[in-house]
Amino acid sequence: MIQTSIITGQQARLASRSNAHTTSTSGLAPGYLQANLIILPSRYASDFRNLCARNPVPCPLIAESATTGCGDAVISHINTLRGDEILGKGSDLRRDAPRYMVYKDSKLEKSHCSDITEEWTSDHVAFLIGCSYSFEAELTAAGLPPRQLVLGRNVPMYRTTLRLCPSGVFRGATYVVSMRPYKRRDIEMVRSITRRFGATHGEPLDWGWEAVERLGIEDIDAPEWGDAPMDGDGKRAFGRARAEGGGECEDEEIPVFWGCGVTPQEAVMRAGLEGVVMAHAPGHMLVLDARDEDIAR
Amino acid sequence: MIQTSIITGQQARLASRSNAHTTSTSGLAPGYLQANLIILPSRYASDFRNLCARNPVPCPLIAESATTGCGDAVISHINTLRGDEILGKGSDLRRDAPRYMVYKDSKLEKSHCSDITEEWTSDHVAFLIGCSYSFEAELTAAGLPPRQLVLGRNVPMYRTTLRLCPSGVFRGATYVVSMRPYKRRDIEMVRSITRRFGATHGEPLDWGWEAVERLGIEDIDAPEWGDAPMDGDGKRAFGRARAEGGGECEDEEIPVFWGCGVTPQEAVMRAGLEGVVMAHAPGHMLVLDARDEDIAR
Repeated sequence: MIQTSIITGQQARLASRSNAHTTSTSGLAPGYLQANLIILPSRYASDFRNLCARNPVPCPLIAESATTGCGDAVISHINTLRGDEILGKGSDLRRDAPRYMVYKDSKLEKSHCSDITEEWTSDHVAFLIGCSYSFEAELTAAGLPPRQLVLGRNVPMYRTTLRLCPSGVFRGATYVVSMRPYKRRDIEMVRSITRRFGATHGEPLDWGWEAVERLGIEDIDAPEWGDAPMDGDGKRAFGRARAEGGGECEDEEIPVFWGCGVTPQEAVMRAGLEGVVMAHAPGHMLVLDARDEDIAR
Repeated sequence: MIQTSIITGQQARLASRSNAHTTSTSGLAPGYLQANLIILPSRYASDFRNLCARNPVPCPLIAESATTGCGDAVISHINTLRGDEILGKGSDLRRDAPRYMVYKDSKLEKSHCSDITEEWTSDHVAFLIGCSYSFEAELTAAGLPPRQLVLGRNVPMYRTTLRLCPSGVFRGATYVVSMRPYKRRDIEMVRSITRRFGATHGEPLDWGWEAVERLGIEDIDAPEWGDAPMDGDGKRAFGRARAEGGGECEDEEIPVFWGCGVTPQEAVMRAGLEGVVMAHAPGHMLVLDARDEDIAR
C-alpha cells in the first residue's frame, strides 16, 4: 500500500525514482499538478516552444529545462509561479516519472523504461505540459464528477480534423480531444468551473452531437486512446445509448470535448524528428510541487 | 501636412478625434503600437476574450475596457505593460480611431463614421488587438522591407481553411493570413526578427508554395483583402511570375504567411451576434501610447 502514503509531489517523484511506484499516476498526490513530459534535441526546442505558445489549449506549456541539457531544474512559463516552485531542488527529470518512452529517429526504441539517464544528453531540452487532472478534481468537488472517474475507467480520447496552428517543423498536426459526457443543463456550470484552469486545457473546446461532426470524430464509441465511453450505469456504450433514443431535453447527456495533452506528443511523432526524443509513458506523469490551485485564475 | 506633425500616439488620437486625421493610420506616429478595435455587447465578452487567449497568433489581445461600459480606460493583457501605459488618460475609444464601422444584428449599419458616441452603451466592452505594423518596421530596419511597403501598396490578405480553436459562440471561423514574399535564404532571418513580436502575430505561420495548398488559398494573385501581390519590380503578379519559371534556388522568392488581425473581425461577423457590434474601419486603427519595443521580447 505504497500509494496511500504518497501525499506530496516530491514523495511521488521519489517513489517513482526508487521504483517503489511504477504505475499510472492517476489519483496520486491529490491536489498536486501532474505534467506531460516531452524531451527534444535542442534544435527543435524553439519550434516546439512556439507550437505550445500558439496552441495553448491542447499544449499548455508549464515549464522547460532551465538551460539546454539541464535535467534537474526548470524555468516557468506560468506568470504566477517560479521554476523552483514547480519543480523543487533535488528533482531529476530523467528518473522521476514512473515510466518513460524513448524514440530514435521517430521510431519507438524503448517502451515503459524506468529511467532515461543513459539516453539523456547535454543537448536535450525537457518540456512540461499541463494535464486535465487539475480540473477533474474541481469538477468532482462541485458535484459534477467526470463519468470515467466514477466508473474507474480511462477518459476516452479522439483524433480530430481540427489542425494546430503550425510552428516551423511542427506542421499538419491536429488536436487530440478528451470527452466527458454531461447533461445539457450542466454545460454552463462545467464551462465556468474549468475556465479557471487555462494552464491545464481550460474550458471545453466544443460540445453536443454537432460537435462530433465539426471535430471530424468518426465514432464516439471507438476512441483512439483510453476506454470507450459508457452511459451513466456503465452498461451501454455512450453513443449507442444516444442512437437508441436521445432527446433534446435539458436532461439529455451530450459529449463535451476538451483539448488533450496527447496533442503535443502526436505533433512531435508526426513531425518526423531526427535524433532521440523521449516522453513519459501514457498515464505515467511527472508529479510537480505546484498545486492545482496555484494555476487556477 | 498634418500627418508629418503627428509623432506620438496621443497626437494621432487627438487628430482623429478632431477629424484633422481621417485616413488610414499606416505610417502615422512611427514606433507607436496600433490596434484593431472590436466592441461587443457584454454577454459575448467572455467567449471573445477566450477566443483570443486560445488563438494568440491571429488574435493577439493587448487590452480591453477597464470595466463593462468603460470607453476611456483599459486593462492590459500584456504582462509587461499597465493599462494606462497602453492607453493614457484622456483617451476616448469612441472617438479616437479615424473611422468606425457599426453593425446591428450582424448587418452593416454605418460605414466609416467618425465616431460611435451615439451607438456606445453602458453594456459595451472594447477589445484592442495587435497588428503587424510593429514587426514590419523591424523587418525594414533589418534591410528586409515588406514588398507592399516598398511598392506603396496594401498587404494582401487571404481567407484560409485553417480553423480557429473555437470558444463558445465563436465557432467555425478560420484564420485570415497576410502574405509578404521573401527569398528562401532570408526565411530564417525573417522568422527570427518577427519571433520577438509575439503580441503582434509573431513569426510566420507557414511559408513556401506548398503552404498555399496547406492553407487552402485558391489563388495567390487574388487576395480577399488588400492589394494583389507583385514581384520585385512591381510589374508582374507574384503568382504569375512563379508560373513563368520559379526555381528551387535560395534566391527564389516564396510566399510567407502571417496571422492577420482581420481574423477576429471575421470570427465576430461569422458568429451571427445580436445587438450592436462596432469596429475600426479597415486600416483606420487606434494608435496607442505603448511603443513597438514595449511588446517585443
